Amino acid sequence: MYTLFHHPMSTGSRMVRLILGEYGLETTLHEEAIWDRREAFLDVNPAATLPVMADGDRAIIGAQVCAEYLDETQGQRQRANRLFPEDALARAEMRRLNDWMLDKLENEVVRYVVRERVTKRLIPEAQGGGPPDSQALRAARTNIRYHLQYIDWLAGTRNWLGGSSLSCADMAAAASLSVLDYLGEVDWADHPALKDWYARMKSRPAFRPILSDRLRGIPPVSHYVDLDF
Amino acid sequence: MYTLFHHPMSTGSRMVRLILGEYGLETTLHEEAIWDRREAFLDVNPAATLPVMADGDRAIIGAQVCAEYLDETQGQRQRANRLFPEDALARAEMRRLNDWMLDKLENEVVRYVVRERVTKRLIPEAQGGGPPDSQALRAARTNIRYHLQYIDWLAGTRNWLGGSSLSCADMAAAASLSVLDYLGEVDWADHPALKDWYARMKSRPAFRPILSDRLRGIPPVSHYVDLDF
Repeated sequence: MYTLFHHPMSTGSRMVRLILGEYGLETTLHEEAIWDRREAFLDVNPAATLPVMADGDRAIIGAQVCAEYLDETQGQRQRANRLFPEDALARAEMRRLNDWMLDKLENEVVRYVVRERVTKRLIPEAQGGGPPDSQALRAARTNIRYHLQYIDWLAGTRNWLGGSSLSCADMAAAASLSVLDYLGEVDWADHPALKDWYARMKSRPAFRPILSDRLRGIPPVSHYVDLDF
Repeated sequence: MYTLFHHPMSTGSRMVRLILGEYGLETTLHEEAIWDRREAFLDVNPAATLPVMADGDRAIIGAQVCAEYLDETQGQRQRANRLFPEDALARAEMRRLNDWMLDKLENEVVRYVVRERVTKRLIPEAQGGGPPDSQALRAARTNIRYHLQYIDWLAGTRNWLGGSSLSCADMAAAASLSVLDYLGEVDWADHPALKDWYARMKSRPAFRPILSDRLRGIPPVSHYVDLDF
């Protein structure tokens, strides 16, 4: 039995939810507003980041760390559904893409979009809340183009993003893109291979809870839940 | 035979050099000035980050990814010298600390110090070179205090940073601190447990090449190479 401390707009949290879902592992979700800096949470994770996954009384901190832990403790028994490739080089490629999504795409695009369009509406002005900074949003919207092109290229040249089989790299990318898509920031029309890959991801049963996420006062774009978008 | 594309002021590069050194794996170093955006390098790693490790014709990208790959391909034969703990929970703790050093400490301190004090002296003004931004440096120097306290606390309560045995977490932290120490940014006097742990790291044979690093025109502080500092 797992508990995941998460937030609907946290890419890393969504990635771990997708992995837990793919593996059919029962999970209790606990939404954590990290800007509240809850003391009991900081005791467990002084970095004040999400996600944190509790496996019984063990706390696993960070999305990639959770992915590694779940592979080590559950991967073998998942057999053909295992989300880590068998080969060390293929695993390195999967991890490179995980870094890309959780670090590069996050720090060049997602972090800004979520802060300006979501977090600033949820937190008081004294903590940095308020209207979005249009310059930061513009920068993020310029940066996203290159990322969409790159993931579109990956999707167009490989069966799944990391190679021939479904892997954590698909979970990481789908997590990033689902956050951006909720807010209507993804231009699907110009990226047909990306769109086709995302439609396949969206139709997976593990994706359903992600499509049910709703932020108070900030509804998703109308096509967010549609399998045909 | 390994080739490492690295830079002396890149934390991730130093971490992988330390692991390769601990494992006694012969490595050719190739210094990469990523700001030159060399095309052949970008073809291999479009993220334009260091380190990139070549194992024959295989390219492994990113410090943590290299650490995982080296554990998977070399860890077993290293026996007692293996830098990954046996237990999944201990590995998760090691990876959490690796993230802390390579991501949090990097983005709150090291990146700014290196950019302001080193990179800006090495690159032309048109690419962003010039005198250091004292505000950015001041912010980094405020942030470093908390990190030194935290690593000092880890060093004071555990045998090695990740737990009872030497692990990649020690390599990651020593990599970060050695970059900062080269530039004289570490207050050792106020952090005795940290200093004791770093002295143990510094005296390891794998550390010697790190202590021989020199930047053109930017010499290290006088105690940089001293085992008694």
